[in-house]
Amino acid sequence: MVDILHSVGIKSPAAPVYAALTSVEGLSGWWTTDTRGDGDALGGEIQFRFGPGGFDMKVLDLDPGKHVRWEVIGGPDEWIGTHVDWNLNQDDGYTRVLFKHEGWKEPVEFMHHCSTKWAVYLMSLKSLIETGKGAPDPHDVKIDNWN
Amino acid sequence: MVDILHSVGIKSPAAPVYAALTSVEGLSGWWTTDTRGDGDALGGEIQFRFGPGGFDMKVLDLDPGKHVRWEVIGGPDEWIGTHVDWNLNQDDGYTRVLFKHEGWKEPVEFMHHCSTKWAVYLMSLKSLIETGKGAPDPHDVKIDNWN
Repeated sequence: MVDILHSVGIKSPAAPVYAALTSVEGLSGWWTTDTRGDGDALGGEIQFRFGPGGFDMKVLDLDPGKHVRWEVIGGPDEWIGTHVDWNLNQDDGYTRVLFKHEGWKEPVEFMHHCSTKWAVYLMSLKSLIETGKGAPDPHDVKIDNWN
Repeated sequence: MVDILHSVGIKSPAAPVYAALTSVEGLSGWWTTDTRGDGDALGGEIQFRFGPGGFDMKVLDLDPGKHVRWEVIGGPDEWIGTHVDWNLNQDDGYTRVLFKHEGWKEPVEFMHHCSTKWAVYLMSLKSLIETGKGAPDPHDVKIDNWN
């Protein structure tokens, strides 16, 4: 098993960051504008759509202002059964977001791509919170010839 | 051992990308303006400096247009002995850069930070090649309260 790991510091208390990870409005503001479902209830399901495809997540853990954990229940084969984990730590006027996309079976090329793309979306999350404007799909920064 | 993995597609033949990974001028254009040494010879050493600190790399492999591999011989403890590996594949008008920073002993928080920061610098490399203008330190995108 291999994991994608990231970290970003956001100049904000933790509550707005947590809201951007659990509300449809927040998620739509940094990841994809086509977000539906319920990210704010244990066992809730969220549908994220990006042009041709997307991801379905099940909410496994919620600790307000501190932790969010999803299981991928729909999407590309490589994603199914992996977990997306968000830890928030408030410190010195910043919220440090520790991000993990855990449990990839193999370090395939698609995982390399997703790692870079997650970083781009974390910068979008940071921008959403700090400036009010994120860069969700389809307004995201494209990193190669197909996405 | 854990690895940082990334991928980015650059609209360019491989040769300019390879040059940006092996020449002081190229490296200065996307990673840090304070780059010295010799990145274009096997066994050559390159010094990268970022404000308070930096990294020293030894060139372990060079395959023009295809592969570059460095060993970290100076820098933060967590980096010493790790390897930075670049694979280039030309395809459909793009050069796909497969990046690995391999051999971290532990998935420490600093590794999460470096993973995100590498993605930001890969976007800088892409921008340098595609537009002629990168975002090297100290003009890079800061991702938290210290870097």
